[in-house]
Amino acid sequence: MSVQSKSCTTPENAGQSGGRSGGVLARLADFLAADLEQVDFLIHATLESQIALTNEIGRYLERTSGKRLRPMLTLLASRLEGGAGEPAIHAAAMVELLHVASLLHDDVIDRAATRRGQPTVNSRWGNDVAILMADYIYAHAWAIALEWLPAGLLEVLCRVATGMCDGEMFQIEKRDRILAEQDYFYIIRCKTAGLFSACTHLGAAVSGAGETRVAALQRYGLELGCAFQISDDVLDLTGDPRRLGKDIGTDVACGKQTLPLIRAIEKADAGDRAFLTAALTNTPATAQVVERVAKYDGIEYALTVARQHAQAARECLEGLPEGPVCEFLRDLTELVVNRTH
Amino acid sequence: MSVQSKSCTTPENAGQSGGRSGGVLARLADFLAADLEQVDFLIHATLESQIALTNEIGRYLERTSGKRLRPMLTLLASRLEGGAGEPAIHAAAMVELLHVASLLHDDVIDRAATRRGQPTVNSRWGNDVAILMADYIYAHAWAIALEWLPAGLLEVLCRVATGMCDGEMFQIEKRDRILAEQDYFYIIRCKTAGLFSACTHLGAAVSGAGETRVAALQRYGLELGCAFQISDDVLDLTGDPRRLGKDIGTDVACGKQTLPLIRAIEKADAGDRAFLTAALTNTPATAQVVERVAKYDGIEYALTVARQHAQAARECLEGLPEGPVCEFLRDLTELVVNRTH
Repeated sequence: MSVQSKSCTTPENAGQSGGRSGGVLARLADFLAADLEQVDFLIHATLESQIALTNEIGRYLERTSGKRLRPMLTLLASRLEGGAGEPAIHAAAMVELLHVASLLHDDVIDRAATRRGQPTVNSRWGNDVAILMADYIYAHAWAIALEWLPAGLLEVLCRVATGMCDGEMFQIEKRDRILAEQDYFYIIRCKTAGLFSACTHLGAAVSGAGETRVAALQRYGLELGCAFQISDDVLDLTGDPRRLGKDIGTDVACGKQTLPLIRAIEKADAGDRAFLTAALTNTPATAQVVERVAKYDGIEYALTVARQHAQAARECLEGLPEGPVCEFLRDLTELVVNRTH
Repeated sequence: MSVQSKSCTTPENAGQSGGRSGGVLARLADFLAADLEQVDFLIHATLESQIALTNEIGRYLERTSGKRLRPMLTLLASRLEGGAGEPAIHAAAMVELLHVASLLHDDVIDRAATRRGQPTVNSRWGNDVAILMADYIYAHAWAIALEWLPAGLLEVLCRVATGMCDGEMFQIEKRDRILAEQDYFYIIRCKTAGLFSACTHLGAAVSGAGETRVAALQRYGLELGCAFQISDDVLDLTGDPRRLGKDIGTDVACGKQTLPLIRAIEKADAGDRAFLTAALTNTPATAQVVERVAKYDGIEYALTVARQHAQAARECLEGLPEGPVCEFLRDLTELVVNRTH
């Protein structure tokens, strides 16, 4: 049940185009197009180096990047007050770089062979290169933050960066035990949801939003991130492999303890509990895992919890000025729990 | 000739007590005792976490720490203007944390089994834990810097942090080739000497030293760092294993291209060149390596270059006010090239 017990594939699926989810993200990307272009330019410039190998990997990371969900959240939050120009763009680039760097280290830790259908940096260039590339990106991300963000927001970023390490370390500490639900929630709040929350927090704050509004958007990001992560857990068991771009059951096959599984293990009889626990270290037929998880309503339970978080995120929007920004923020709460890939 | 071709031992030897070198460092530690105690306290507080595993490793890192050479350099530079209180202490803790984090990642990359005679974090807890612990320390180091240092000095730290990655990445890029001397100097300027330089730069700047004096101390740190690293290279071939606390020849056995070796390969005839080049990937008898390196004056050459850097460091001190600080700075230039361990 270690997160690194087996080589695994860990694509990020949320951003792929097509279908209803693609529709929202594509419209959002259009809405933010001018800013996103500057974010991409800034990321490109950051990944440029006099070291040929660093440049090569930088270009590879650009070619294989995700859909920039975190920069979009940051920029969108900043638009509520009419946008924030350069600081918002730099904040958006910073969170994406933090995210990219953390994925590089995650992939080394998980011994992941592919991400988004492409070979990971660790599998293509080696662990040493992946570790250093992430360090390089982290250092540049801090340089951007230092130059562009006020001290109070730098603290937000430090907190999220240390929190992401806390979450991952906690996960490692617990890897030989089945997680309690509260442990699971601690981990996703530290990692996915913590960064989502920092995005909307930063975006709102750099645009000069008042304290109440910043707090609402920060909370929105946290709830959205929880919904997003739980939904991701569910898709790993129920998604369409062709749309997902990966086989189903890869999280479980990687030893990742997802909410549906944790719930099913909690509720299962002794035999099924033993089977599901073993599934985290063996490589069982995914269909059998799905069947047992479903037998104890693990999938339905996780979906319900994801919907609750999405609903909580929507509630954070109450009182915000209606308009395209609020509409996109609301659409995203639907997207994360209804996406098919 | 890869830096990671074999498992290796990489203790840091400069700070060990005893003999002439120990004398200077011991006196320096006395001179800075009150400040160093606060640095240690701050590092201790930084390594405390609600995650039990993080705490455990934090305590281990404290127990197995080096002699705080970098914090001492920072504090010493700040004393030239009478000291700088809290900012100097925080700058000193920050550079030590940067150093500790970089060693954690270096040891993963080098697959090092021991450091300072103790098991490395990667060998004791695994690569994943070592990677994350370093990320955690980096994030906290930035948090300290953000809170205590002015923007201009944060830039210095960003530059040194990215430089350290550049140096390491460049080394990886070149690992299948014999380094030219200029490549070697680029690497040590990025890594060891870059951080030494940042220490004296920060120490001087936070204490309010004028531009000329800051520049002189920054240059001093760079030259001292070069002398230190080259001297370290030489000790790997000529040191007394009992005093070093490690076998000699471990750098070469790890595939590390040191200056004596690079020089000897440059000057050697075809047969000896082939032997020395192969030594970086095989595990030959160290005595044979030392003999061939000495045959082409590689050791003497490196020592001469180290002494030139130490002399250049001393020259940076000209015009600084005489007193205990200047005396210690001068003693350190002697120490780095005359140490026996």
